Amino acid sequence: MEKSALQIARAAYQPKLPQALKGAVVAKEGAATQSVGNQEEIKALFPNTYGMPVVEFVAGEAKQTEAINVGIILSGGQAPGGHNVISGLYDGVKTLNKDSKLYGFLMGPGGLVDHKYVEFTDEFIDEYRNTGGFDIIGSGRTKLEKVEQFESGIEILRKLGIKALVIIGGDDSNTNACVLAEYYAAKNYGVQVIGCPKTIDGDLKNEQIETSFGFDTACKTYSELIGNIQRDCNSARKYWHFIKLMGRSASHIALECALETQPNVCLISEEIEQKAMSLDEVVCYIANIVAQRAADGNNFGTVLIPEGLIEFIPAIKKLIAELNEVLTDPATGESREFASAEEQIAFVTSNIAADNLAVLNSLPADVKRQLCLDRDPHGNVQVSLIETEKLLSAMVAKKLAEMKEEGKYVGKFSAQHHFFGYEGRCAAPSNYDADYCYSLGFNASRLIASGKTGYMSVIKNTTAPAAEWIAGGVPITMMMNIERRNGQNKPVIRKALVELEGAPFKFFASKREEWARETAYVYPGPIQYFGPTEVCDQCTKTLALEQGK
Amino acid sequence: MEKSALQIARAAYQPKLPQALKGAVVAKEGAATQSVGNQEEIKALFPNTYGMPVVEFVAGEAKQTEAINVGIILSGGQAPGGHNVISGLYDGVKTLNKDSKLYGFLMGPGGLVDHKYVEFTDEFIDEYRNTGGFDIIGSGRTKLEKVEQFESGIEILRKLGIKALVIIGGDDSNTNACVLAEYYAAKNYGVQVIGCPKTIDGDLKNEQIETSFGFDTACKTYSELIGNIQRDCNSARKYWHFIKLMGRSASHIALECALETQPNVCLISEEIEQKAMSLDEVVCYIANIVAQRAADGNNFGTVLIPEGLIEFIPAIKKLIAELNEVLTDPATGESREFASAEEQIAFVTSNIAADNLAVLNSLPADVKRQLCLDRDPHGNVQVSLIETEKLLSAMVAKKLAEMKEEGKYVGKFSAQHHFFGYEGRCAAPSNYDADYCYSLGFNASRLIASGKTGYMSVIKNTTAPAAEWIAGGVPITMMMNIERRNGQNKPVIRKALVELEGAPFKFFASKREEWARETAYVYPGPIQYFGPTEVCDQCTKTLALEQGK
Repeated sequence: MEKSALQIARAAYQPKLPQALKGAVVAKEGAATQSVGNQEEIKALFPNTYGMPVVEFVAGEAKQTEAINVGIILSGGQAPGGHNVISGLYDGVKTLNKDSKLYGFLMGPGGLVDHKYVEFTDEFIDEYRNTGGFDIIGSGRTKLEKVEQFESGIEILRKLGIKALVIIGGDDSNTNACVLAEYYAAKNYGVQVIGCPKTIDGDLKNEQIETSFGFDTACKTYSELIGNIQRDCNSARKYWHFIKLMGRSASHIALECALETQPNVCLISEEIEQKAMSLDEVVCYIANIVAQRAADGNNFGTVLIPEGLIEFIPAIKKLIAELNEVLTDPATGESREFASAEEQIAFVTSNIAADNLAVLNSLPADVKRQLCLDRDPHGNVQVSLIETEKLLSAMVAKKLAEMKEEGKYVGKFSAQHHFFGYEGRCAAPSNYDADYCYSLGFNASRLIASGKTGYMSVIKNTTAPAAEWIAGGVPITMMMNIERRNGQNKPVIRKALVELEGAPFKFFASKREEWARETAYVYPGPIQYFGPTEVCDQCTKTLALEQGK
Repeated sequence: MEKSALQIARAAYQPKLPQALKGAVVAKEGAATQSVGNQEEIKALFPNTYGMPVVEFVAGEAKQTEAINVGIILSGGQAPGGHNVISGLYDGVKTLNKDSKLYGFLMGPGGLVDHKYVEFTDEFIDEYRNTGGFDIIGSGRTKLEKVEQFESGIEILRKLGIKALVIIGGDDSNTNACVLAEYYAAKNYGVQVIGCPKTIDGDLKNEQIETSFGFDTACKTYSELIGNIQRDCNSARKYWHFIKLMGRSASHIALECALETQPNVCLISEEIEQKAMSLDEVVCYIANIVAQRAADGNNFGTVLIPEGLIEFIPAIKKLIAELNEVLTDPATGESREFASAEEQIAFVTSNIAADNLAVLNSLPADVKRQLCLDRDPHGNVQVSLIETEKLLSAMVAKKLAEMKEEGKYVGKFSAQHHFFGYEGRCAAPSNYDADYCYSLGFNASRLIASGKTGYMSVIKNTTAPAAEWIAGGVPITMMMNIERRNGQNKPVIRKALVELEGAPFKFFASKREEWARETAYVYPGPIQYFGPTEVCDQCTKTLALEQGK
């Protein structure tokens, strides 16, 4: 395998561990816990894993530990640092007992169900230390939620003598990890299940979890690119760059990137929803900033757009809901068939409510066409195919033309478009993510050795130097409540959206008028692994603000 | 001005200089030179600047130099390192005599003509050392080619007492620098003109110029992103990523990125033109690799596409030429007007030759529509609006569907698209570009002190450590020949396309079958400024191969 110079140099990095995990530990247990909502229902659903205490590891007496076999699964989308969770867990179980074994299930939870796995060795692990990606064993989106899957899983776990399973995933995967933990506990199968908080979107965080891993590296990679674009923008002084950023349901990435780069505009979906803004209002908001800058002679700028924006605009959400409905035949529940695209468009436009039709007609022709035509296999509008960045810039251009006629805008408007997602999901982890992930994995081995199940591996106080980080575990049930999903009440970990009352948004809101008018761009540059600590070891601005740093 | 931690730390970097430039120098002159082609015509056009010797600086005796006022202009598209050329020149003229002054003309060559300028100071220069972008004074695309411009320029140069002008630009801008040098020499205006080789496209290089600045940083930034995408691709194992890279006329960027990242497919426009491949042949080439990988169970991969590809496919080039013609009214020379888009499409399709119509009809509907409709202000097809990456993936999908019916393909094909250009043009320069640019600027001050005009600042032997670099100057006329441009014979610096007989392409060609079949991805990671020298101080693979390293 040919490697870049950086791959080779970075492999030698020894991730930092919390002081508490450097020697023998003992689990200091807190009081019994409760779920964040729907306590009675959650308790009833998780009789064996509900109410357990929060755990913190402190220095303990060294003692002989038996060899233990552990399995690990990567679940869902890639996030930088996954390989370090695995290498941390590997080193963790080996320090417990050198005869311990770590198995990886291939291509996500499906590997457990289908009995596809590998055993890790020193050489194998060493190839992947401090690297990005999930290619070490692959990931997948199979959801572990059925008894048949759990039963199929226990077969291979027994065959391999695996006593504990670590599942690395987002809110859904960790919810399922808990369901699995509960099932195996109820059946007395003797297999512990531990979760690890992952998602570049940053929407798995709460009182117990400071941040999900990968968010730091992904945001820094996007911010590097946004900074480069801003420098170009500020040099050429002739384009408005509309930059869409990954993150379907929460705008944490857009907000963090705005805090790092100080763009002229950053839209926050949660605010747009709360204010019930119309698409026209969003367009006017941007157009007014463009006009204001043009009045100062600055016909250039940057606009950050969260990927999920369109679904947070109430009028569009309503339109999409009706579009999803109208193309389904209520008699059969199947998608309606049409002889031609034109016939389909005619059917749609003559069958939706007047207010929705008005919204549809306000959209650029190609977006309107796409909404009427393109459907996923379930007959739903393919929201992810909407190029929101182009939609917005086209509508802003139209609005500016109107404003020009009214004498409210004098300037030139020319737009460039970007969408960043895959560019950052598999970047090599920053020092923060490399250390955090390694610690999460190492810590998981200590939760296993302490006999815990239904816990999430948790590392706190990460705005301090790594030695001062606090390691422990939190019962997954503690983070749950009941939500309606696909027409059913389900126990889930509450997704963390951007808090409009939180410090990161409030700081942004206090600055954005200045950033809009001035050209106050910051250029973060690429992630550095070897330089001075103030360059290499910073956490996200979001986390620093949340922690009052 | 708020700055990132990296901006602050990087400002302190002291770029490396060639040993020869560290002390007093003397210009060692070679024999008289000739232009690379059309010697008699070039000589006639440049009687005062033709035939001058190549110059190399060697250690000389220190002597008192008079203060000198110098002007600098950034011309054309941004490239990483422009600010370092300026800081190198600034430090260079100040070491000649501390009372020397450096002026920057604003927003490109237009600043000279319109008399818009700033004077640099220590504090001002220090804000921009080792940063990306051209925002220090801005750039522009005004072409310096008319006598009125030259005369307007001399007014302000005289007013400011400027004795030498440095123009940082690509092949066209350097050609114009030489025309200006010749004009001022012929008029005995006493102003020297020196050029500096810039372009991220890498197409300004020849026997005398090893590389144009910015190419290194831009390619490394794109390669970081391609590597991240490849890691994602290799983890998720479900997408083919079609990645278009900036570079309209030459494929150097795509080739360099391929050498750095080892993708499954990289198209080289120059090869496609030489082989006179049809679009269908290009599509088949990709589709066959997709099918081959699918047969191995690998339904994922990466395809690098040079931005200018479409114009190198002879059949498409011919189609575009006729499209440009057919929509112009020969009677008036103006664009024809149509009542509707449909009428325009009907007119086009019924008025182009049968072979061109066949090519047009082979294209996806939206591309066909765009080619028939969208025109720039001169009535020409807007080739740059063609999303080649989407065009190719759509046609590959269609081809694979046919192959599936014939039993020649078993797999799933799902594509993602990317276009990288603005993401890299203003990145903070790599150590290589920071050192190379600083040396180019510093060296320009020595050319000025030696009384040279019509020279390009040249630094050679850059695959060796910076101390061993060779500094000097090359008469711009030496790089010229006569080419047909816009219906006129013009003296120009020959653009360097990818040489199919050159070592970089040959190395790539020897490896590409293996890279197509295997998953041999390399992950370069982000540019590092502080780490070990083998990580931080590498030149491009292209240059290393060209120099036999």
